[in-house]
Amino acid sequence: MNYTFSDKVKDMRPSAIREIFKSLSDPTVISFAAGNPSALSFPVEKMKNISEEIFLLRSTEALQYSVTEGYTPLRKQINDRLKERFSIGNDYNETIITTGGQQGIDLTAKVLCNEGDTIICENPSFIGALNAFRSYNTNLVGVELEDDGMNLVKLEAALKTNKNVRFIYIIPTFQNPSGITTSLEKRKAVLALAKRYDTLILEDNPYGELRYAGEEIPTMKSMDTEGRVIYCSSFSKILSAGMRVGFLCGHKDIIQKVVVAKQVNDVHTNIFFQMLASRFIDIYGLDEHIASIKELYKQKCGLMLSQMDEKFNKKIKYTRPEGGLFLWVTMPNVDADELAKVAIANKVAVVPGSTFCPVQGEKSRSFRLNYSTPTNEQIIDGIDKLAKIMVE
Amino acid sequence: MNYTFSDKVKDMRPSAIREIFKSLSDPTVISFAAGNPSALSFPVEKMKNISEEIFLLRSTEALQYSVTEGYTPLRKQINDRLKERFSIGNDYNETIITTGGQQGIDLTAKVLCNEGDTIICENPSFIGALNAFRSYNTNLVGVELEDDGMNLVKLEAALKTNKNVRFIYIIPTFQNPSGITTSLEKRKAVLALAKRYDTLILEDNPYGELRYAGEEIPTMKSMDTEGRVIYCSSFSKILSAGMRVGFLCGHKDIIQKVVVAKQVNDVHTNIFFQMLASRFIDIYGLDEHIASIKELYKQKCGLMLSQMDEKFNKKIKYTRPEGGLFLWVTMPNVDADELAKVAIANKVAVVPGSTFCPVQGEKSRSFRLNYSTPTNEQIIDGIDKLAKIMVE
Repeated sequence: MNYTFSDKVKDMRPSAIREIFKSLSDPTVISFAAGNPSALSFPVEKMKNISEEIFLLRSTEALQYSVTEGYTPLRKQINDRLKERFSIGNDYNETIITTGGQQGIDLTAKVLCNEGDTIICENPSFIGALNAFRSYNTNLVGVELEDDGMNLVKLEAALKTNKNVRFIYIIPTFQNPSGITTSLEKRKAVLALAKRYDTLILEDNPYGELRYAGEEIPTMKSMDTEGRVIYCSSFSKILSAGMRVGFLCGHKDIIQKVVVAKQVNDVHTNIFFQMLASRFIDIYGLDEHIASIKELYKQKCGLMLSQMDEKFNKKIKYTRPEGGLFLWVTMPNVDADELAKVAIANKVAVVPGSTFCPVQGEKSRSFRLNYSTPTNEQIIDGIDKLAKIMVE
Repeated sequence: MNYTFSDKVKDMRPSAIREIFKSLSDPTVISFAAGNPSALSFPVEKMKNISEEIFLLRSTEALQYSVTEGYTPLRKQINDRLKERFSIGNDYNETIITTGGQQGIDLTAKVLCNEGDTIICENPSFIGALNAFRSYNTNLVGVELEDDGMNLVKLEAALKTNKNVRFIYIIPTFQNPSGITTSLEKRKAVLALAKRYDTLILEDNPYGELRYAGEEIPTMKSMDTEGRVIYCSSFSKILSAGMRVGFLCGHKDIIQKVVVAKQVNDVHTNIFFQMLASRFIDIYGLDEHIASIKELYKQKCGLMLSQMDEKFNKKIKYTRPEGGLFLWVTMPNVDADELAKVAIANKVAVVPGSTFCPVQGEKSRSFRLNYSTPTNEQIIDGIDKLAKIMVE
């Protein structure tokens, strides 16, 4: 049979990262391509003990259907953490547990956007979000990302020119893919522009807990006095990615609509792991564990940067992230799609910048490097290989 | 702020069942309203042991990001089961693991339907599916469900009259809410009509493993020789509902599109519980455990029916299901919305038939009873109360 698909998805293809991810089954390939947390960051023994406790004491609750909003104690703990750690908290806000941060992004687009509506995002931006937005047939407009955040002139132009801008999608802290952190001034300016042009903001902050250098900068949600910012994050980078537990915090009117959309999407998120995350916070808190992850990534990021400082041609520019999982390399005049192909032939996997462009088919001279998953030896070896490729 | 929502979701409200579910926090209410499996059906001790094993031996795989298609060994085991148990298996079929059967239904609608496209379904039908279809702004057309399946004349009329019928949604075995099983003749006829009017079929079979009386009837998917049937099911009623592990099986072209949609929806389903389900099948198989669930539900269904036979006014009709979780009561001339209100005032919760109507706002003289979750005492007491209410 021949099948026809909806206009929303008919042009969608598996993401480039995903295809690279598949080629990584070759164990001789050094991967800087992943977006994975380090396996060393999973608190296995503690999770194992909590898991036993849940099976022993609360198995029915953990294996039965549950409510769409999420496990109440965990929602409270998240609210406390958001307040204490990120100064987020207003009476009108609610929090829903989502199946990873990805579902929060997907459902935000679903409840807010008709087909053809515009979403403004950073260029480059997170491919998972861009593809979620595409899957609702929205109009994606990218705004150039500078070293301290979006170019404000271009952002205002985008807000002026495009009709039905439903929200600005932004990852202000340790951005994926660039590692860039938006400055306080630009956060305020983006918020002011959103207000002036009466649009919403979706602040995606999956890496915000992972700052290992520099000064804390307030979240955009913490500056939100009127319910304009929807805030999305997850436990993927601080407890486990495979368990798929994330959350979305925003004005209750919006969250209530997301609840309805989630109910028909997957009823609720795996309740066992919601309870596990909650017990983990109860017993151990998050600070000590997160401190150990930050120590690990700080070391790995520092090693990668020092290797690049030493070995890369000086014409090659790269970001110096203060947290998160990624850094971003820009070459003077090489198409990164081509570089990525040569790199994989040399057993190093990187993700070319074109992957992260809101407008598909755009060329890019940049590529993304991940330092959370490779070993120290792989970082040294892989950067060495990349340096040699980029000299040629 | 005032928010505007997408046309897809702006009129969606939390489902009536969900609101009833919330009122059940009162422990003195006898609930026949749930769609839950019995907590006695969860193999807690076995799951606990497997969980320990996974944390000990394969924690990294179980806590890290995984592939969107799902855990490969589990997909193979599902394919084997579908072949052995339901005669399902063609070269062109693929299987994807979904976050509960609900996600399979949601994403099928997403990849196949534009706004305004038609989905034909049984009237009454599963509220979770109806609301998923509504969330893509599709046109829902219900076809009267008779004791042996859809009225074929009305089905053909619906296929003739409506443009862009993308698929027929059908729960042919122990239907939710009615408990009705579509006869072999009608299954063949529905398939023939789908072929004649060139539309697809989404066969939802979450209860198919739970037959405790009567003769097995082949799945519609087993009669599908051309990739016209998409088949959806889950482990919710046979292992655990809270773990949210389901699956979708269909032509690979369709499943590949669903993979892309799932990737942006939640990346993948909780991998720990995919592995747990797989190890459960490895070690114990499913047959013995399912046999014990069937024994339990057979007893409960039998008890409820015998109580109804004894106590209900003879003018009240009800189905006699051969499996599944539900039966369906039809009154001669009382609006079931009103009956449900009186029932809850008398501490018995039922779900009125209007909830399950494809066209919202329709009246119904029927209501759904669930027998998998109440205790024997609750069944006796609750049916007694309902009988008294319906006499008055």
